[in-house]
Amino acid sequence: MSDVAAPVAALVEELSKLPGVGVKTAQRLTFFILRSPNDQARRLAEAILRVKESIIYCSRCYNITETDPCPICSNPSRDQDAICVVEEPLDVLALEKTGVYKGLYHVLHGALSPLNGIGRKDIRIDELLKRLAGGNVQEVILATNPGFEGDYTAGVIKDDIKNEVAAPSLRVTSLARGLPLGSDLEYADEGTLSRALEGRREI
Amino acid sequence: MSDVAAPVAALVEELSKLPGVGVKTAQRLTFFILRSPNDQARRLAEAILRVKESIIYCSRCYNITETDPCPICSNPSRDQDAICVVEEPLDVLALEKTGVYKGLYHVLHGALSPLNGIGRKDIRIDELLKRLAGGNVQEVILATNPGFEGDYTAGVIKDDIKNEVAAPSLRVTSLARGLPLGSDLEYADEGTLSRALEGRREI
Repeated sequence: MSDVAAPVAALVEELSKLPGVGVKTAQRLTFFILRSPNDQARRLAEAILRVKESIIYCSRCYNITETDPCPICSNPSRDQDAICVVEEPLDVLALEKTGVYKGLYHVLHGALSPLNGIGRKDIRIDELLKRLAGGNVQEVILATNPGFEGDYTAGVIKDDIKNEVAAPSLRVTSLARGLPLGSDLEYADEGTLSRALEGRREI
Repeated sequence: MSDVAAPVAALVEELSKLPGVGVKTAQRLTFFILRSPNDQARRLAEAILRVKESIIYCSRCYNITETDPCPICSNPSRDQDAICVVEEPLDVLALEKTGVYKGLYHVLHGALSPLNGIGRKDIRIDELLKRLAGGNVQEVILATNPGFEGDYTAGVIKDDIKNEVAAPSLRVTSLARGLPLGSDLEYADEGTLSRALEGRREI
């Protein structure tokens, strides 16, 4: 990049820090931005700055928000007696898109991962237990990612609730495991197929 | 995205305008930016703005540059009698990395594509002919992309030079076609293999 203009080299470098963006992709994005209308590039730059300036974490559910509490926590028409526990804000997005769930959320911001040194203090488990101590919640849906770390995290939270939250009527549930819609049975992995069998229902 | 904070939705929208970035990737990038240090996000935003503010096109070779003429055109130690014609600024980058070529460039900003309505007036062919009319250039290397549009563009430029530039000593060459380094002969496509046979050299 010796003879390349410094601002171009700088943008390539900054873009290649994004996840999944290598140097080649960063170059392509840079030249796309160079060629795009000034307006569009400015909107992108401003959106980046604005998101950093105005986004905070909700002090109840720890989802990202512009206002505290967040629109979901402060919406009185949502079921106040159910909390769906997810790893990331993106998971809230995915669940909201279904339109099926009308309760509240709790964003852990990660999953327990002893191998990567991510323990209880690194994610928002204690904050969840504190919310549950209030006693109004009837159901906690553990919607961590299916997989080792998500399942382990859900197990730890389940035990914690049992041991530390004195609320005998509180149900702890998890999302159903099984075949994804539109999938092919013959290509399903063993784990998924076992879970689908175990979870079979009368029709 | 109904209950998602507006700045988050805005950044997802702006990012998904980038080539190869769908909504899912844009969401992932947005949450990465949200979580990255303020400094890093600010540097990215500023790099985008700076590239749009300070980058212009060289009035000789039409490569992107901060100064006109560009560092390559204004470098007296480069061979002034050779011009390598490429489609995009990224191609200049790739050729410069080899360190083999010491001449000048001419960036067409595209290739002729009758099917997509891209004709002579849309790329910098006339500007190239004007440079050649000066009479100092001894060799034009046509380094358009191997493929239909690039080859067609190279053919048109070659004919134009023959018909319009009165310079009998001017050589017009193109990059060698053949097997790429590290490739497997058995997986090479027919076209590449034919070109590799036609272009065989004594060793």
